[in-house]
Amino acid sequence: MAIEIEKPSVGLSKVAVSETHGEDSPYFAGWKAYDENPYEESNNPSGVIQMGLAENQVSFDLLEEYLEQHPEASTWGKGAPGFRENALFQDYHGLKSFRQAMASFMEQIRGGRAKFDPDRVVLTAGATAANELLTFILADPGDALLVPTPYYPGFDRDLRWRTGVKIVPIHCDSSNNFQVTPEALEAAYKDAEDMNLKVRGVLITNPSNPLGATTQRSVLEFLLDFATQKNIHLVSDEIYSGSAFSSSEFVSIAEILEARQYKEAERVHIVYSLSKDLGLPGFRVGTIYSYNDKVVTTARRMSSFTLISSQTQHLLACMLSNKEFTENYIKTNRERLRKRYEMIIQGLRNAGIECLKGNAGLFCWMNLSPLLETPTRESELTLWKSILHEVRLNISPGSSCHCSEPGWFRVCFANMSEHTLEVALKRIHNFMDQRKTGRN
Amino acid sequence: MAIEIEKPSVGLSKVAVSETHGEDSPYFAGWKAYDENPYEESNNPSGVIQMGLAENQVSFDLLEEYLEQHPEASTWGKGAPGFRENALFQDYHGLKSFRQAMASFMEQIRGGRAKFDPDRVVLTAGATAANELLTFILADPGDALLVPTPYYPGFDRDLRWRTGVKIVPIHCDSSNNFQVTPEALEAAYKDAEDMNLKVRGVLITNPSNPLGATTQRSVLEFLLDFATQKNIHLVSDEIYSGSAFSSSEFVSIAEILEARQYKEAERVHIVYSLSKDLGLPGFRVGTIYSYNDKVVTTARRMSSFTLISSQTQHLLACMLSNKEFTENYIKTNRERLRKRYEMIIQGLRNAGIECLKGNAGLFCWMNLSPLLETPTRESELTLWKSILHEVRLNISPGSSCHCSEPGWFRVCFANMSEHTLEVALKRIHNFMDQRKTGRN
Repeated sequence: MAIEIEKPSVGLSKVAVSETHGEDSPYFAGWKAYDENPYEESNNPSGVIQMGLAENQVSFDLLEEYLEQHPEASTWGKGAPGFRENALFQDYHGLKSFRQAMASFMEQIRGGRAKFDPDRVVLTAGATAANELLTFILADPGDALLVPTPYYPGFDRDLRWRTGVKIVPIHCDSSNNFQVTPEALEAAYKDAEDMNLKVRGVLITNPSNPLGATTQRSVLEFLLDFATQKNIHLVSDEIYSGSAFSSSEFVSIAEILEARQYKEAERVHIVYSLSKDLGLPGFRVGTIYSYNDKVVTTARRMSSFTLISSQTQHLLACMLSNKEFTENYIKTNRERLRKRYEMIIQGLRNAGIECLKGNAGLFCWMNLSPLLETPTRESELTLWKSILHEVRLNISPGSSCHCSEPGWFRVCFANMSEHTLEVALKRIHNFMDQRKTGRN
Repeated sequence: MAIEIEKPSVGLSKVAVSETHGEDSPYFAGWKAYDENPYEESNNPSGVIQMGLAENQVSFDLLEEYLEQHPEASTWGKGAPGFRENALFQDYHGLKSFRQAMASFMEQIRGGRAKFDPDRVVLTAGATAANELLTFILADPGDALLVPTPYYPGFDRDLRWRTGVKIVPIHCDSSNNFQVTPEALEAAYKDAEDMNLKVRGVLITNPSNPLGATTQRSVLEFLLDFATQKNIHLVSDEIYSGSAFSSSEFVSIAEILEARQYKEAERVHIVYSLSKDLGLPGFRVGTIYSYNDKVVTTARRMSSFTLISSQTQHLLACMLSNKEFTENYIKTNRERLRKRYEMIIQGLRNAGIECLKGNAGLFCWMNLSPLLETPTRESELTLWKSILHEVRLNISPGSSCHCSEPGWFRVCFANMSEHTLEVALKRIHNFMDQRKTGRN
């Protein structure tokens, strides 16, 4: 038999064949399990309920109502002369009307306690792009960013994959409700040094995904002091800022800067998006707000790779510059999220489960550590699999968020109807009952 | 007097401070001159006419007509249940209906001589992103792509800036109408080797920007043979394929592959966009069509950084799946572009200027080498400055496109009204007359 020599196939880059995109995680595996057997009330009542997706559907009716009352925001055709200008508009500055509306919306969300200059708003196709873009600007390949754990699993892709930058975790735990401590911060910095990595910045999410809680003012203060002392950057991803249940419970890094008369502001950059607070992930609207002129200029130039459709900018410029709409939306959305949060917390408590005290976001941080056989990642994933395949709920295990303490899970509550949430809670209740029975 | 020690400001990455974004080029400087003093028929008749922008406005009325007749494509509100689904849709596969419509549109443009599988269509926010994304996948930092000159100035940013990849020019000249020759190709490959660069692929634009001409079938054949022999990639940027004045004058690399039964197709990738052929740059719609499964998977994952607004996907899915519209649009647009092209060629000829024989695109490639003091880049830029500041036309000098033969200029003709084009031609005519008078 002749030996067949296989021709080498054409090669791809190291980035293309690397696994640093991080998609091989239970976080994404859970989505797949949902996609294969999605719960539907009438057609598939025993399917998997998706509680692993941080989507906000609770205020959609308000958006729909706006669009009905304001057809000029979306309609093109007779008597709508804006189409031509918009279709051609590809300036990487973005529509001025939209940047103004974004700056103003960000101010409203912060209860007017911080000001935003539309000329510092850089637009990107979602926060995913915004975070990657900032990483390209702030760090070289092989450098490190410090990120508190648990963190959003997508950061493994956004901050690392194409940039070649490393994430060094700042380990947080339940002893102080997962808030960053000066000690944990210093330890992470030392870890990076021990690995010969140059630390270029700290990236936090505030309110935190997956914790569903805001960062304390004192923590923000020492984070900024630390960044100043080490001469590094501080990135604050505030994409859930409008989803804090009360404006007063959220402190933006922008407020800290304002209080300090913008001293050391050049090292601070805020990421924002309309995917969560406005529930429009499909529209791909993210933004970088930087206090550093050079970062603004570079980010704007780099945003060529990730511009927002001008059709969408036009619609949102109309919507967000309507103060009557935005004021009502922000208020109502906060109230509805709080109601949902209380509903799930109470339901879980009735089932014998406690959560971290939350005040923001589209999810709660659920403590199932009492259920683990052993306090390990393996036990956590065994439990996660039972919940996914037996209870048929897709929730995200803490280990996929790099949580160093096993047994915690992120549970989303705003991407479904109240009825579906009730079904999910009932299933959890039954599951807990069975475990109790099984153990007795 | 005390010595003030300035505190070092916080550092940015090498990418952020590098000049490889290529924006410091006459190509972009000309835009700036236009922005500062834009021609307007009534308000600023002596302003700069923008002939440096490859935009297609000649068929806008067809798009407007479609939108008037099909409000369902853009309107949301009462009786339009699609908003919620669309607003939430952020799957990086893109809307299936839109990928199908794109594949079908690409087939129509090629006169049905090539087939496209919607499952190989990867969507990106414009061709800018598509080209960068492919470069990230095909080459490592420090590797090289071979690109025929003259080439689109934006490639310096798109292919190099964040990827760290080098462009090695394949020098083409007027002796054979700037077509790539096997000798020029081999010479470029050798240049790369001499610089110790690993060549990962060849990237062509067909039809060519800035030449405004299609690539000959024989050239495509030997390019593919060369890529096979060297075991490298071949990227064909075909964003002007629908702007070839006749479908039969354009041969896509897809047709070459089809004729070869897709042998060696795994090394071939096509870039497409709706910015030029449909005149919608503001909508940011690009696509990568790859015959390589691994590239498709990786590109799709990477497209998370550059997704298209689902609002825009929805509108375009409606528009492009309407065969009556697309057939009429493609035919009419080609005819109008040809008419414009003939108008400018004739006008320039009347002024004593010859252009490369073109058959595609939104520009012509104008030969002003007889006007140069010396056959150098410096003389070319001196002439360019006169034209920009005295004649007040922004055209793009060949050197900004890395053309190795001085005296050529790209002149855009589709981003203005016929009347404005007439004004521009008249100015050129006067300029040429004055030069003749001055010389006599």
